[in-house]
Order: sequence, then C-alpha cells, then structure tokens
Amino acid sequence: MNMRLVINLMGKALVLLGLFMILPLLWALYDQGPDRAAFIISILITLSSGLLIIWLVPGGGEIRYKESFVIVTVGWVLASLFGSLPYLLSGVCNTFSDAFFETVSGFTTTGASIFTDVEILPRGIIFWRSLTHWLGGMGIIVFLIALLSNLGVGANRIFHAEAPGAVTSKIMPRISETARILWITYLVMTVIETELLWYFGMPLFDALCHAFGTVATGGFGIKNKSVGAYPEAAIQWVIIVFMFLSGANFALYYQALKGRSLKVFWQNEEFRLYTAIILLATIVVAINIRHLFSGEELIRTSLFQVVSIITTTGYTTSDFNLWPYAAQAVLVTLMFIGGCSGSTTGSIKVERILLLLKQGLVEIKRMVHPRMVLSSKLEGNHISSELVSNVQQFFFLYIAIFMISVIIITSMGVDLVSGFTAVATTLGNVGPGLGEVGPAGSFAHIASQGKILLSVLMLLGRLEIYTVFALFSAGLRR
Amino acid sequence: MNMRLVINLMGKALVLLGLFMILPLLWALYDQGPDRAAFIISILITLSSGLLIIWLVPGGGEIRYKESFVIVTVGWVLASLFGSLPYLLSGVCNTFSDAFFETVSGFTTTGASIFTDVEILPRGIIFWRSLTHWLGGMGIIVFLIALLSNLGVGANRIFHAEAPGAVTSKIMPRISETARILWITYLVMTVIETELLWYFGMPLFDALCHAFGTVATGGFGIKNKSVGAYPEAAIQWVIIVFMFLSGANFALYYQALKGRSLKVFWQNEEFRLYTAIILLATIVVAINIRHLFSGEELIRTSLFQVVSIITTTGYTTSDFNLWPYAAQAVLVTLMFIGGCSGSTTGSIKVERILLLLKQGLVEIKRMVHPRMVLSSKLEGNHISSELVSNVQQFFFLYIAIFMISVIIITSMGVDLVSGFTAVATTLGNVGPGLGEVGPAGSFAHIASQGKILLSVLMLLGRLEIYTVFALFSAGLRR
Repeated sequence: MNMRLVINLMGKALVLLGLFMILPLLWALYDQGPDRAAFIISILITLSSGLLIIWLVPGGGEIRYKESFVIVTVGWVLASLFGSLPYLLSGVCNTFSDAFFETVSGFTTTGASIFTDVEILPRGIIFWRSLTHWLGGMGIIVFLIALLSNLGVGANRIFHAEAPGAVTSKIMPRISETARILWITYLVMTVIETELLWYFGMPLFDALCHAFGTVATGGFGIKNKSVGAYPEAAIQWVIIVFMFLSGANFALYYQALKGRSLKVFWQNEEFRLYTAIILLATIVVAINIRHLFSGEELIRTSLFQVVSIITTTGYTTSDFNLWPYAAQAVLVTLMFIGGCSGSTTGSIKVERILLLLKQGLVEIKRMVHPRMVLSSKLEGNHISSELVSNVQQFFFLYIAIFMISVIIITSMGVDLVSGFTAVATTLGNVGPGLGEVGPAGSFAHIASQGKILLSVLMLLGRLEIYTVFALFSAGLRR
Repeated sequence: MNMRLVINLMGKALVLLGLFMILPLLWALYDQGPDRAAFIISILITLSSGLLIIWLVPGGGEIRYKESFVIVTVGWVLASLFGSLPYLLSGVCNTFSDAFFETVSGFTTTGASIFTDVEILPRGIIFWRSLTHWLGGMGIIVFLIALLSNLGVGANRIFHAEAPGAVTSKIMPRISETARILWITYLVMTVIETELLWYFGMPLFDALCHAFGTVATGGFGIKNKSVGAYPEAAIQWVIIVFMFLSGANFALYYQALKGRSLKVFWQNEEFRLYTAIILLATIVVAINIRHLFSGEELIRTSLFQVVSIITTTGYTTSDFNLWPYAAQAVLVTLMFIGGCSGSTTGSIKVERILLLLKQGLVEIKRMVHPRMVLSSKLEGNHISSELVSNVQQFFFLYIAIFMISVIIITSMGVDLVSGFTAVATTLGNVGPGLGEVGPAGSFAHIASQGKILLSVLMLLGRLEIYTVFALFSAGLRR
C-alpha cells in the first residue's frame, strides 16, 4: 500500500473542504450570526491540518485498486469528521454522534436530521448543512480529480470507486475530463434551479439551499415542514422537475447536448424504466390518497413524494406518516430502488433492478431449456456474467446488511416500523422514514450508538458497499 | 406439450389423495363426528374424478422439462382444490377462499390458519388438516414417483421441480429409489416422534397430529395456544429436537445410516451454518426476553421459537407478539432463511444463504484483484457460475415478489407490520406473523382476495418460484 500517496491526497481533500467552509462563513458574517467564530475556527483547523499533511507527506506514485478504496473511504470519513466542526463549535450539536450523523447525512446526500427545529438554526449553519449535500452529491473526490489532472490511470480507479452505479459511463477518454464535464453539468443545473425558485418567489438564500438539496438529491429541509412550507404550486413543480432530472444519468445530458437531440433519453433503457416506475407508483399513491387531496394538488403531492423518495432526495410536502398503509408501502419499496446510475441518487439504482429483472427471465428460460446458452443485453451491450454476478451479489449484500441492522437498531428499543424504515432510509440515502423517524419526526431520540450505526449505513450506501468492504479485504491482506 | 400424460398423472394423484382421505374418515367414524358425511362425499368425489380421468385419458410418453413444471404446479393446485372439500362440505368453512387458504396452508406446510378457535373443530377435520402437512411435506408428487417406478428419466425432472433446495441430492442412481428412501426416513421419524410424545403424556391423537406438523415442518396447532397448551418441558423438548432434525437435509440421515457414522453432519457445511444460526439467534432472543422467563424455561422458550421459525414450522409456546422488538426482528429475519435444502422446510434455505455469503467474498476480492479468476466451493465441489446465478437470482425474485405482495396486501387495509409479516410468513411457509396475524391472532379477518393472494404466495414459496414461473414461460411458448 502506497500510504504516502493516500495521506497526501487526504491533505489535499482537507484543504478543499476548508476552502468550501468560507461560503457559509460569508453568510454568517453578513448576518452577524452567532456562528461566525465557529466557522473561522473550523476553517483554520481544517486548512492548517490539510496543509500540514501535504507539507509533511509528499505524494507521488501510482494509484492502484487497493489505494483507490482507501482514498475514497478514508476521504469520506475524514471529510465527515472535519465537516462536523461547525456544528460542534457553534454549539448547535451537543454530542459528537449528533454532529457526525448530521455531517454524514449531508455528505452522503441522505438528508436525515437530528434537529427537531431547524428554523432556530443560524443561517451559516443551515447553509453549511445544505452545502455538504452539494459537495457530497457529485463526490468530493471526483471534484478533486477534476482539479488534479496529473493523477493518470489512478484517477480512473478512484472515479470508479466513488461513482454510483454498476457500470461507470466514461464520457471522455480522460477521466479528469469526464469529472470536469459532470461537475459543470451539476453546476449549471444548480444555477438554473436557483434562478427558477427565486423567480417563483423563494428568497435567494432558500432558493440556493433547495437547489443544493435537489440537484444533489439530498433533501435537508430548511423549514420544519420541509418543502411543505412553500405552498406555491410553481415552486413545488420546479423542485419535482429538478429532482426528476437529478435522478437521471448525468452522462445523458452531455450526450444530448453533444448530439443536439433528446433521443438519447428514450433510447436509454434505464431512463425508460425509471420514468415508468415513477408513473406507476404515482398512480398507486394517488389512488390511495385521493380522500386527502384533489385535482392538481392530488397529482402534484403524489408525484412530489414519489419522485422525492425514488431519487432518494427525501423532501416532503405532506406528512406521509399519516397516509394509508399501501401508499406508505409503495414509498418504502421505492427506498430500495433509487434513481439511475451516474446520478447523485443512492440506494440500489434502476440499472441494477433492470439487470436483475432481465436475468430473472434468463433463469426461468434456462429451467425450460437447460442446455441453451442464454444471456441478456443492457443498453445494447451483452452483459458479462461477471457484471451479472456483481449486481446480483450487491443486491444480496444490501438486503443482508439491511436485515442485520434492523435487528441491531430494534435492540436499542426502536419499534419495528421506525427501525425498519430508519435503516432503509439511511442505507438508501433517502432521509425520512415512517413512525418516529417520519417526516414530522427526527432522528434526535435515537441512542448515540444507533446514530453511529446509521451513519455507517449512510456511508456504506453512498459508497455502494463494495468500496468499503474492499478496503477491509485489501487491509487484511497487507 | 404431452397433455395426455399430464392429465393422466393428475388422475393418479387424485386417486392417491382420495385414498388418504380415508384416514380422517376413520377418526370421524370412531367419534361418530358431525364430519362423517363430509368425508364420505369428499372421498367419493375425489376418487371418482381421479378414476374417470385415468380411464378417459390414458398416459404414456416421456416427461420432458416442460411437462414436469406443469405436472408439479397443476398437481399442487388440484390437490388443494379437492383437499378443500372436507372443509366446505362439513361447514367449518363458509367460503371457498377460507377452505382453499387452509388447504394450501396445509399442503405447503405453512400452518397459517383462518380458524380463530380450532378446539371446536371435529377431530376428523383436525386430523385431515394435520395430514395435509404430512402429505405436502415430502411432496405429493414425490410420493407418486415412489409408487410409480415406470416414469423413467421424467421422474428425475419431476423430482427436481418439486424438491426443495438449489442442488438436488440424488442418494441413489434411480430417482424412484431416492424418493422411496426419503419417504421411509420420513415415515420412521414420524413414528418415533409420535411414540415419544405419547410416552411423555400426550394423547395418541394429539401426538400423531403434532408428529405430522413437526416432521413436515408445518405447524398447524390443534389447540388455540399451539404447543403452549402442553406445558410439560419433556414434550416441548421432543418437538424442538424433531423440528431441528426435520430442518436438516434428509439425505444426511441415509448417508449416516449407510456409513454408520454421524461425521457426515459435521462435514456438511450447510448443516454447520444451520446449527450456528440457530445458536446465535437463540442467544440474541434469550437476552431480549430474559425479563419474561428464567432458567431452563428461558432457554427452552427461546430455542423452541427460533427452531420453530427457522425450520418454517411455526409452532409457538409463547405469544412472541408481546416480546421486545429485537426478538421479533430476529424471528422475522429467520423467516427469510429457512432450513436446509432437501428438508421439508420452506423459505430461501441455508444452502442458498451460504452460497451467497461465499460469493460475496468472491466479489469483494474481485474488486481488489480485478483480473484474478475466482470461484468458491460448496460441500467440497466447485460452484458453477450457472448455479451461482440461479441462487442469486432466486434471492432477487424472492424479495421482489415479497415487496410487491406487501404493497397489494396493505392496499386491502392491513397495517404495515401485519401485512409485512403475513407476506413473509406465507411466502416462507412459516405460519404465524406479527400484529393481527401473530400467534394469538389468525388470518380470518383478511379479505377474500387477500387470502387468495397469500395462498398463491404459499404455493410459490413451496415450489420455490422457478417451477411456477417456468410453467408460464413454457406455456407462453406453445
């Protein structure tokens, strides 16, 4: 293991993180907020730690597979540790587990919160909270790759370890170029959404925070009623559209722009299934909640919640904890699906579900014709048996981790529905669950060990299990 | 499709079923019970239908894969339809859905019941109910194979389509011989358990019914408090031991007898994992319910419930609906595991879990060493990639069917915990769930369409999904 290289890159990641903390500091200074000092100290600690590391441990050498898992996993844990400083130093969080949970929830774009009242928080803190979504959404390390173009082949490996989905789409031959294009697309989408929300009457601060939360599919609300605090239909529609767009594969936008045609979307099997699931789920939810809403509001509310959950954003406009059981069951099922590969969404992802459905047909055909050689295609390419096994196994590991975690969390006294959905929503990077952790509740009352467990689940979900496990496997073999 | 052959075999299965109905009739006659007429009419209808079919449609020809799925699936549905006759004709069930649910629950060895008070039922009906477990446990069609040794290679295919587990262990070169040995083992175990229960003070009738329910891992209680109605520790221990033995691969008994050594058990990886899961789960449950029981009773009650659920029997000695959430979460997780392949248990089965765990390690190693060729072994044999894919895909289909069914059942107004566990317990052929369908409850209040859905799930679970799906696949291609 090339530890010098790993440590050097960690230093660079910390410098980047410290620089990003200047943005919330600006809001804190503008407001003369009580959180000014907290941000100044956090920036000093993070920047100086980063610079010290870079100075003490110079990097160099090749990034192999082993290093890539360590860089990504340790990078995420370090960012979450230093990212909790503003919460701790400003006093809005009293315990480490609370601050760590909130930061991990931000970076992993989960959006589950330990704050029971977010409206009393200073704006610097709220901005930092939403900014962590935005930084984590596309990947802090991918951002680093976009900046450092001298990483060579190793960049590829890091990108693959951090990027969501089973097949990583390389838009450009050079990975640093791909990372740069993805970040530009991301930035443009954020700017457009902010302008639209602002135009439809949201204050600029709120518009920025919601654009961060939407494009990153994070979902931290800045009001206690989440997006429900903005009853204007236009605002909710803008958020629906941008959640939907952020749940699609970002590579498609580049391809559509380059080819000057929207055909790529309909030619993409994953995008078609993603859209079909959303439409079907919206119809089922709408039928079940038709006694609570009517007309445009019924369609908007059903669609908002379905898109919000499948894209693992987690914004709410209505407390679905009070909806009929079938609507809740649909939402919980969506928590296990997620958006498209190459998007900022979490959970299992439509691409893997699509591959599993196709492979299901293959297995059934094989029973009837045991000697026939069968394989299926995805997006026009034959699927290799390695990829199939990787995806099938991912599904098993996901469910196995889920079930074991439910046993642990319920042993801390959490009831079955709350525990089940708390694990589903954190592992899937969604945000709200049902019961005590429903849209009107929070994760505040869960025991400290429970918060740490759920934080680990958020990281496992964001890094798609394998990257974290590979770290241990590589570590054990040293 | 050789329809004549299929229809002819169905006729033979009906004759067999009609002959078995004579056993409950004997109890009804002995008791001068109100259910005598019902059994006489049921026997006449079933026998005459069977004989008429055999007479009208003579069989002959080879059983190919296609036919094997049709024979097994249609055979099970037909047996369940004719098997409901005694419930309907005696008037203990008022609707078809109730009678069909109870019969399917019997044959599939699920043990979920629509009766809120079983103690008022006549003994003929109770005996029939327990006998359906016993017939379904080893497989009605396997029994047919044991009797008809002229089926040739086709017998192999039927056996494979009906037998539980991913790898079918062929003990003897000839499959009809294998089927005969399995049935003899089954019969011997039933006789020994009956004698032990009788010896420890259970009336003979009760002992027989419980032996049927245990060896078939069915779990229909003949008292409202299930096995809790027999507080004698010795009786409960006998049932624990026989549930445990019935959850192991039956081929191991033959191998142990033949080799005159118990070593085969400890050499069997699946058996070791099965035992380890039971011990671990018992410890976790015991820790969680230590405020409710103490001493030997604590160990016995924890072990009883763990073994009962993992073997998908479903007997209870205590209402676990009132236990702490973590103990309930453990039991629900066990519902998704099941016993060993080649046993009478339902659910996913330990063999598949073992293979999935091994493959998980392979996938993680492959991330670190992408170019290495990796494969794992099961019971000393290399696992083919076809088998891995078959098992991984089974897991996905199982969970997918589970989730869709939860959405459907909750849309009938069943709450989340009851709906979730009702689906888990029927698909896994266990018996009781939590909430309304807990040990003290019943499936009586679920809507008719819900009972039909759950009946289909029990059949899907018993025939391990693929067999049923292959039927549709084969049917569509005619």
